Amino acid sequence: MSRLPIRLEKSVYIAASASAAGKNEKEGPLGDCFDLTSDDDRFGQDTWEKAESEMQRLALDAALGKAGYGQDSLDAVFAGDLLNQCVASNYGLMSFGIPFFGLYGACSTAAESLILASLLCGAGAKRCAAVTSSHFCSAERQFRFPLEYGGQRTPTAQWTVTAAGAFVLTDDREDVRTDASVKAIPRIAAVMPGIVTDRGIDDLSNMGAAMAPAAADTLTRYFSAGADPGEFDLIVTGDLGREGAEILRDLIASTGRDIRRNHVDCGLLIYDCDGTDRHAGGSGCGCSAAVMASNILSNVRAGVLKRVLFVGTGALMSPLTVNQKGTIPGIAHLCDITGEVTK
Amino acid sequence: MSRLPIRLEKSVYIAASASAAGKNEKEGPLGDCFDLTSDDDRFGQDTWEKAESEMQRLALDAALGKAGYGQDSLDAVFAGDLLNQCVASNYGLMSFGIPFFGLYGACSTAAESLILASLLCGAGAKRCAAVTSSHFCSAERQFRFPLEYGGQRTPTAQWTVTAAGAFVLTDDREDVRTDASVKAIPRIAAVMPGIVTDRGIDDLSNMGAAMAPAAADTLTRYFSAGADPGEFDLIVTGDLGREGAEILRDLIASTGRDIRRNHVDCGLLIYDCDGTDRHAGGSGCGCSAAVMASNILSNVRAGVLKRVLFVGTGALMSPLTVNQKGTIPGIAHLCDITGEVTK
Repeated sequence: MSRLPIRLEKSVYIAASASAAGKNEKEGPLGDCFDLTSDDDRFGQDTWEKAESEMQRLALDAALGKAGYGQDSLDAVFAGDLLNQCVASNYGLMSFGIPFFGLYGACSTAAESLILASLLCGAGAKRCAAVTSSHFCSAERQFRFPLEYGGQRTPTAQWTVTAAGAFVLTDDREDVRTDASVKAIPRIAAVMPGIVTDRGIDDLSNMGAAMAPAAADTLTRYFSAGADPGEFDLIVTGDLGREGAEILRDLIASTGRDIRRNHVDCGLLIYDCDGTDRHAGGSGCGCSAAVMASNILSNVRAGVLKRVLFVGTGALMSPLTVNQKGTIPGIAHLCDITGEVTK
Repeated sequence: MSRLPIRLEKSVYIAASASAAGKNEKEGPLGDCFDLTSDDDRFGQDTWEKAESEMQRLALDAALGKAGYGQDSLDAVFAGDLLNQCVASNYGLMSFGIPFFGLYGACSTAAESLILASLLCGAGAKRCAAVTSSHFCSAERQFRFPLEYGGQRTPTAQWTVTAAGAFVLTDDREDVRTDASVKAIPRIAAVMPGIVTDRGIDDLSNMGAAMAPAAADTLTRYFSAGADPGEFDLIVTGDLGREGAEILRDLIASTGRDIRRNHVDCGLLIYDCDGTDRHAGGSGCGCSAAVMASNILSNVRAGVLKRVLFVGTGALMSPLTVNQKGTIPGIAHLCDITGEVTK
């Protein structure tokens, strides 16, 4: 199995997903897709960190409500965020009292948590959840500058998305609530963990370039194991941004494959980037979590998208390692999601 | 399965384990047990963060060597540490090129990584690894004060251990290398993820008190599901320190059970605490990782310990949440390890 895709022997379904997002995200192209939004990005809390925790709580609560599951029925939740010591997750999900696995995969955490939740569902658990978040204001002051500083950004810089996404998984198709609008149930058919990849990028304002080689490595391994890029309605990366997405397409083209027709990036879907401060697009692990949990999976459920390859990408540096002249390692985790047509 | 132990249907074995540790740890009661030590805590590196990464690399390399496994044969590695963005793991294990899952469970990470590695081995992977580290110098300047400041500590404060531990797991007993000295092979019989528990402790210098209720919750759930404290040669927590260990014993006693006879804490095993700066004992996720990977598992292999309950405990706050008047949530993950007697 080493370095190869893990095909789930037992079927694992995404019973429901939900998202919470901030003001900029609500005003973006996918604004109508999010379940909960806050016009001041505070979600009723008095610190940005508590606001981020609250987004996680709201997203998981909404996903459980859609699935019709009580919180007591979950075997485990896998969760992560960008904050030091992952406190958005630690505090945000405490009230549920669910067995908890904390993850750190930078912006790849949505995919990492989906992989681990689906593996645990396939290994005897019945229902698991995966929750991820980021918040522009908590991330900005931790990773970059105080908000009041108003620093300018380079064109390749990405904008940390204020959002959370939650997914509730089950090992039983009969356990998935459907209605007439649901044409297909999203099933996780295969997963593939990423390998840490470092090509020497050291520019904190160009993380897309640092992550693209990791995405190319994971996708190439997946395609080499038998999948063809053309099989997928969408290949969804999150979040390479404009620069990283271009680099990924070029890297894949250099292997003789073409993803230009069906590749989209969550960081480019969530904002209308032209002429705004969003520059190269969104980033932050809430970005791909919220885009997948809302727009993409809705389209799978509606039968519009039949097969989606989700590749979550993360940049694994810290401000300290970059100050110490370190380069930026990247990682990319993959989930192959199929819509299983309902009767 | 919810909130209950997960009994591994397929047997998962710890084929080998190894540890790297610093000067204070070498001079402690378990000093002779560690595979690699560094008298200046630098492991040949020019920053403390790189030294911590190097400990992870050395520990995994040594564990692979003992097991006789090539790094290419590992299906995945689960790793974590205490540094912001988990950079000790991200950079330290990059050279192996193994599919990588980054975790954050504070000082519970050794147990969290063992749980997830054993679940993946039970779900189709053949060989997985779990690696965890902490370093006094990188942790001190990140969480507390610059080393040069020389701040005094309260009696309940713990000392971050400079150490890393690595475990290599396999799903095949025939895949475990043994010699005449090996009387038993450590097998992970059951695991149980922790639930985030917050009893309102807000003193950063008394994290044992914040973690003890989580350990009590996990142990009580495990005992209630059918295990008796007396079945285990050792119940090993990591790392509650002196204060937390006392609180845990009292909390368990209040449920009508007694663990005083067979409970030890990794933070109290690794240092001779009386009259030294170690105060309430060791902490940091390298502590339980190194103690389990060296002394405890050696005694399982030697047939001295037949059954060990390992409960890794973590405090899930950040310096920021404590400054914001937040309390300190704790978590405790459990692994039930049995020595399977060799022929």
